[in-house]
Amino acid sequence: MSEQRGISRRAFLGAAAGSAAALGVGGLAATGGLGSLAAITGSPAAAATPPGARTYPFAGSHQAGIVTPAQDRMYTAAYDLTTTSRDELVALLRTWTTVAARLSAGLSAGPLGPTSGPYDAPPDDTGEALELGAAGLTITIGFGRSLFLGPAGAPADRFGIGDRIPEALVALPHFSGDDLDPMRGDGDLVVQACADDPQVAMHAVRNLTRVAFGTARVRWSQLGFGRTSSTSTAQVTPRNLMGFKDGTANLKAEETGPLEDHVWVQPGDGGAPGAWLAGGSYMVVRRIRMHVETWDRTSLREQEAIFGRTKGEGAPLSGGTEFTEPDFAAPGRDGTPLIPAVAHVRLAHPSLHGGARILRRGYNFTDGNDSLGRLDAGLFFIAFGRDPRTGFIPLQAALAAQDGLNEYIVHTGSGVYAVPAGVPAIGADGSLVDDAFIGAALFA
Amino acid sequence: MSEQRGISRRAFLGAAAGSAAALGVGGLAATGGLGSLAAITGSPAAAATPPGARTYPFAGSHQAGIVTPAQDRMYTAAYDLTTTSRDELVALLRTWTTVAARLSAGLSAGPLGPTSGPYDAPPDDTGEALELGAAGLTITIGFGRSLFLGPAGAPADRFGIGDRIPEALVALPHFSGDDLDPMRGDGDLVVQACADDPQVAMHAVRNLTRVAFGTARVRWSQLGFGRTSSTSTAQVTPRNLMGFKDGTANLKAEETGPLEDHVWVQPGDGGAPGAWLAGGSYMVVRRIRMHVETWDRTSLREQEAIFGRTKGEGAPLSGGTEFTEPDFAAPGRDGTPLIPAVAHVRLAHPSLHGGARILRRGYNFTDGNDSLGRLDAGLFFIAFGRDPRTGFIPLQAALAAQDGLNEYIVHTGSGVYAVPAGVPAIGADGSLVDDAFIGAALFA
Repeated sequence: MSEQRGISRRAFLGAAAGSAAALGVGGLAATGGLGSLAAITGSPAAAATPPGARTYPFAGSHQAGIVTPAQDRMYTAAYDLTTTSRDELVALLRTWTTVAARLSAGLSAGPLGPTSGPYDAPPDDTGEALELGAAGLTITIGFGRSLFLGPAGAPADRFGIGDRIPEALVALPHFSGDDLDPMRGDGDLVVQACADDPQVAMHAVRNLTRVAFGTARVRWSQLGFGRTSSTSTAQVTPRNLMGFKDGTANLKAEETGPLEDHVWVQPGDGGAPGAWLAGGSYMVVRRIRMHVETWDRTSLREQEAIFGRTKGEGAPLSGGTEFTEPDFAAPGRDGTPLIPAVAHVRLAHPSLHGGARILRRGYNFTDGNDSLGRLDAGLFFIAFGRDPRTGFIPLQAALAAQDGLNEYIVHTGSGVYAVPAGVPAIGADGSLVDDAFIGAALFA
Repeated sequence: MSEQRGISRRAFLGAAAGSAAALGVGGLAATGGLGSLAAITGSPAAAATPPGARTYPFAGSHQAGIVTPAQDRMYTAAYDLTTTSRDELVALLRTWTTVAARLSAGLSAGPLGPTSGPYDAPPDDTGEALELGAAGLTITIGFGRSLFLGPAGAPADRFGIGDRIPEALVALPHFSGDDLDPMRGDGDLVVQACADDPQVAMHAVRNLTRVAFGTARVRWSQLGFGRTSSTSTAQVTPRNLMGFKDGTANLKAEETGPLEDHVWVQPGDGGAPGAWLAGGSYMVVRRIRMHVETWDRTSLREQEAIFGRTKGEGAPLSGGTEFTEPDFAAPGRDGTPLIPAVAHVRLAHPSLHGGARILRRGYNFTDGNDSLGRLDAGLFFIAFGRDPRTGFIPLQAALAAQDGLNEYIVHTGSGVYAVPAGVPAIGADGSLVDDAFIGAALFA
């Protein structure tokens, strides 16, 4: 891990707002970005790039970790602010921008790292990722509704931004089947860390938490051990804990036109209050516990009927292979459709939702077991979209009302966040360029 | 994933007690074992063996997963039996042996796999690891004290084995600093699954749980996301969540003489009742939560004094490099030893414990956070030894009494298990050879 030795802590913290050694997208992008698509698992070049060496650029018109080819492991945390100072909030976002950029480049959280003095101060990195490299780390930062409106019981609009909440950052309605734990959802801020190595993702969240001490504290956090979506056509489709391929029809990084339509907030979206969010996106998370023991005692026929796809290949029950478009009209022997009326693939299909699509980026999770010995495991659903009102909400409403999967799942956590655009450039050591930090436009 | 198609479920279950297609250690070993040591992360040949393709032989004089080079990810579960039938317990161990051998070889849990009919029956594998390969999976099975003695409130000696409990399978004493949750420890049976891919490890535990339905249920389970020990000289020493290298002085697979002295139960050990355990070992697990937020605000000087090693290199404070033997007498400038009297490296050193050593095989874990926003994270300590009375117990007693780490940790779960020897041979499809299943000697 290369380090800038000899920079004092004081000089470093000052440099966070400076502009020295600035590299734009074209700079850091040289070590990753689209050029590294060929190194994704399953492609012939996979062996050429050891996982620890992979990097994705932090700077860009959009934040990393959205259309970045979904890494295999994830740690996501939401935070509640413990300050009511706007200046402290802005300072935190500046610091997070710098630390996130450093970690994404394979540097330690601070310039002195975990092992260099001053010996009478705590190290400025916790150290457990010292030999693990960047491991394809991306860090994505978002803002919850309570950041703008205040949490219940706290002063409303603590930070003077209540009039800048985007119109589309709505509270999710109650869906049939929700059994939400408030402490597994929401939060003022959210940080999604994805990486090829779970220890690198956890290290990132831990160090962002560490530098937030006194300003924000963790509300909830979740480790995801296996990706359940592909976000690039170069990736093999993974499987969820029901054993089915997931996200076959997901939006992919290569679909640049549809990404503008369905993922990236456009100028003018969200009304005047939300103008600062252009180039950003909305992130919806749902902790979906699966009753895996019940599922595992369900016949293969029933499982395939519920998904509307074969379990092995992942082909629609109307025929073909994984990527064949489902034929919802194709009749079976008894006259009913080959793809049942309440099959997941049908209810979730864009044709039922005015063509609306979302970019899914979820992960399998397990948090041990409950007192009855049942695994507390399932899908930590993450999706990005241009407007939850036309994307996630109608989609989930349709699924909650009819999906055959509902017998086997319960939603236990929920959150929606506005994810600002990226920073156009960042210093090689994480120092800010032209004071561009994640969310700066909100406070301009 | 290769499969034996065309074998009926009925024929397969019958074959579990058969001897067709038998392969001894020399058979399955051809695809892994010591020959695959060169493929461990950090060695030049790492790129030559994709993680998914790595296999370790299930059969052998000892169970796999003890001296096997510690894989990066782990899922461990303990079970309580819900039957009082000795026959059902023995049947479960036969089935587990077959399923564990199949999964270790990269096969599905049952011959029909997750995607083949009969369509009106549940699949005999849950499917989420279908494309992931064996990923270096090992499965290690052990027996808790309650298997022999009955849990409190249940009939004692349910299975007629109460007089065969090995003398060394003792209840651990209460250690200073213990704050044990009974439902995070103990259990009649334990299954440790380790792999290069966490989804493969979790899949193994899930499928062993599935086939135990009606006979045993999960008491506790734990995901470990990063190994904290090396068990081979070919491995890079990993770091724990305090950021320090861990297990530098660990027993290694290459130390065959010391392994006999300190890990493998020898004939005559454990008294006459424990004769069946020869070739096995004892497994101790401790869920050790770390107060990482407090640790992260501790000076580097203090951190290094507590461990008695440098944080970067991992060298003893008496000088040298990582593998230099500590010089506990070396004086510092003020006359006190360079390695403090209560440093972890000193208190844990074999020289303080009559030369006793244990084989550590622990993992970093995180289970989210508590209601105060503190990460619920730490070390899931696993160790194997020949006799806990002379190995783990005096070692932990010394650490619990004096270790400077105690301010930063609390033990929240604890278990001790007798781990039987391996099976000498197993069929290529997991069928038993000469009815040899894990633990057979206990029931002979």
